[in-house]
Amino acid sequence: VSLAPAAGPDAGFWWARDDLGFKDGRLHLAGHDLATLAATVEGPLHVYSEARIAANLGRLHAALAEIGAPARVYYAMKANRFEPVLRALARRGLSGVDVCSPAEMDRALACGFAAGDVSFTGTGVSNRDLGRLLAQPDLTINCDTIGMIRRIGERSPGRAIGIRVNPELGVSYGGAERLTYAGDAATKFGIYREQWPDALAMARVHDLTITSLHFHVGCGYLTRELEAWDAAVGAGLAFVDDLPDVRTVNVGGGLGLPHRSTDAPLDLSRWAEMLRRRFATRGLTVAVEPGDYIVKDAGVLLLQVTDVERKRDVTFVSVDGGFNLAPEPAYYDLPCEPVACQPRSFDTAAWRPMTVAGNINEALDIWAHAHPMPELREGDRIAFLNAGGYGASMSSNHCMRGEFTEMLLPG
Amino acid sequence: VSLAPAAGPDAGFWWARDDLGFKDGRLHLAGHDLATLAATVEGPLHVYSEARIAANLGRLHAALAEIGAPARVYYAMKANRFEPVLRALARRGLSGVDVCSPAEMDRALACGFAAGDVSFTGTGVSNRDLGRLLAQPDLTINCDTIGMIRRIGERSPGRAIGIRVNPELGVSYGGAERLTYAGDAATKFGIYREQWPDALAMARVHDLTITSLHFHVGCGYLTRELEAWDAAVGAGLAFVDDLPDVRTVNVGGGLGLPHRSTDAPLDLSRWAEMLRRRFATRGLTVAVEPGDYIVKDAGVLLLQVTDVERKRDVTFVSVDGGFNLAPEPAYYDLPCEPVACQPRSFDTAAWRPMTVAGNINEALDIWAHAHPMPELREGDRIAFLNAGGYGASMSSNHCMRGEFTEMLLPG
Repeated sequence: VSLAPAAGPDAGFWWARDDLGFKDGRLHLAGHDLATLAATVEGPLHVYSEARIAANLGRLHAALAEIGAPARVYYAMKANRFEPVLRALARRGLSGVDVCSPAEMDRALACGFAAGDVSFTGTGVSNRDLGRLLAQPDLTINCDTIGMIRRIGERSPGRAIGIRVNPELGVSYGGAERLTYAGDAATKFGIYREQWPDALAMARVHDLTITSLHFHVGCGYLTRELEAWDAAVGAGLAFVDDLPDVRTVNVGGGLGLPHRSTDAPLDLSRWAEMLRRRFATRGLTVAVEPGDYIVKDAGVLLLQVTDVERKRDVTFVSVDGGFNLAPEPAYYDLPCEPVACQPRSFDTAAWRPMTVAGNINEALDIWAHAHPMPELREGDRIAFLNAGGYGASMSSNHCMRGEFTEMLLPG
Repeated sequence: VSLAPAAGPDAGFWWARDDLGFKDGRLHLAGHDLATLAATVEGPLHVYSEARIAANLGRLHAALAEIGAPARVYYAMKANRFEPVLRALARRGLSGVDVCSPAEMDRALACGFAAGDVSFTGTGVSNRDLGRLLAQPDLTINCDTIGMIRRIGERSPGRAIGIRVNPELGVSYGGAERLTYAGDAATKFGIYREQWPDALAMARVHDLTITSLHFHVGCGYLTRELEAWDAAVGAGLAFVDDLPDVRTVNVGGGLGLPHRSTDAPLDLSRWAEMLRRRFATRGLTVAVEPGDYIVKDAGVLLLQVTDVERKRDVTFVSVDGGFNLAPEPAYYDLPCEPVACQPRSFDTAAWRPMTVAGNINEALDIWAHAHPMPELREGDRIAFLNAGGYGASMSSNHCMRGEFTEMLLPG
């Protein structure tokens, strides 16, 4: 069955894929008619495709197979912690999980991951947190401060630990400052070069073995950011020479995906080639920690049109869910492109710019400004793309409009 | 008992009040030692003072008494929906509640407000929402679109309604674009002048009586914004002449409070004088819809220091709670100033700039940059001011670090 381009001569949507597009004029994800699916529940619906999640993970593994070094994937579960998603990943056995809080660790274990397949990379770690983390002897804990090394040493001398370093280089989607984790300005993350001797000494004092080096130097990076990312990885690797017991280098997450028609997908072979040049002869395991890359484009948020109304020079399409259900468009300028589930016409040249607005009493609750849309009416369904990552997991109950259903389409 | 200034010669903190300041070197709110209070719970604690809430409401009523027209306060509960806060307000009987979703309406009713004391002002209102709202005959429903007028008319012909208009003028704290609800650019809120004849006609068709006019033209406004606010109120009032049955004009919320040492408080007598000039001779009830003004400075968020560490040229103070517990500092540039609960010294000239960072794995999770603080150590408590509004109510479980306790100090 052919999808998107078959819908009409102008329907070459940039986001269309084998598993996402129009069939008989209706938007489908993983073989499911989304408007029909939406009608099975009340209110907003987050839908995820297990097949797409598996495909994203498979593509990543295929690239990692090229680097000539053992490789591990730790899925960053803060992107999407829906239990069926986690259980499906655990069942497939192709990834571990990276967690950033004790509660995330508990959920990972409850969903079927072994503690040895879980890494913790957190910040602002309290002693209460540490108590819960250290109860798992097989958990990899990446230390973010020298104080954390000391506090682990005081509680669990002799334990194996990871250290998160900050190589002072980093990249982000379109250079967005909000998404920069390492770079010119000092961030809260990781141990800096000047602190390094003290960090090593602190680990020695407590007989802690540093088996893992971690750095996170990207957020949403695409091909255009790859050269800079590679340089940042090189800077991170410079720390490895002081770690005789290190077995794993975690180059962090941040692998990006297209959010706009103008974004080219991440060139994964080039990415792998960069890792190959850095790692092929080192005898180290390479770990990566993707979140969005695994789940974001596997999910859509389905909302229903409540009003279509012209206000001054703008056509507002109001829907029954707001930015509290997927905060990235409003807060991070990372759009969730709205797509009508049953366009009345595929003559996209005749589509008109519309502003799609959520149902939260805040001016910034706008899903898309002046976005070309077909004619829409009350009750129509709209799918918001790329809602599979940092959507439900960051959602709030702002205005008490935080209720939604989540659904994993098995695949 | 004298508070703040008595603590030391330099301790004239801009935020100090009779009920908030240092006593014997320890920060107190409403007579409670905050560090001691924080130690009674595990993890983050939102504390609110009922006495301060009552004082804010009392000050507002005193000003409203000057305008020479009947006045009503509808507390905008999206700012803080903690049930004990709502119950305390209902018990005092000095305000109604404005809600923006059916779930908020249900909570208001459950906490003791009569439906006649509740107004609904929402956007993106679905038919499902309408079903719940219209079940309350005494609820005031402010219509945001012509479509909403029609849909109410179809379901409840003859009902009394309110109409929210957009007077195309508006003000916000420091002119922040994110917080602009009416102004040069078309927003999703309210019915515009060009739509007005159609809106009136639609109400007539369904025999709906327009008893209330609503506009929301400010967000966080202070004295410096008052002239512009007054002009916006004048523009909103221009709609009243076409409404023979109108009894109430709701001039919205948005009354601001100081967030920084450089902010002067809102001059409430000047505000009331402006309302007096607009309303004294009209025979209308004036309604206002404050949220932050009632609750924000009545609440603090209490967190505990996990690490103090120099990274490059920055001293980072990490705490056991992040921006997901109070999103305004990170997302809206509205600071929650951090105050050490037990400063080791009140020689503020010797305090050093520190960056206070939360425990969420995001670069933007910074409570304050380069803020002067006394020496701090692991385990110290920090109070974040102005966390009583849009803190807990907008919180998320991002990174599964969303747990906290809420407490209302009776007063």
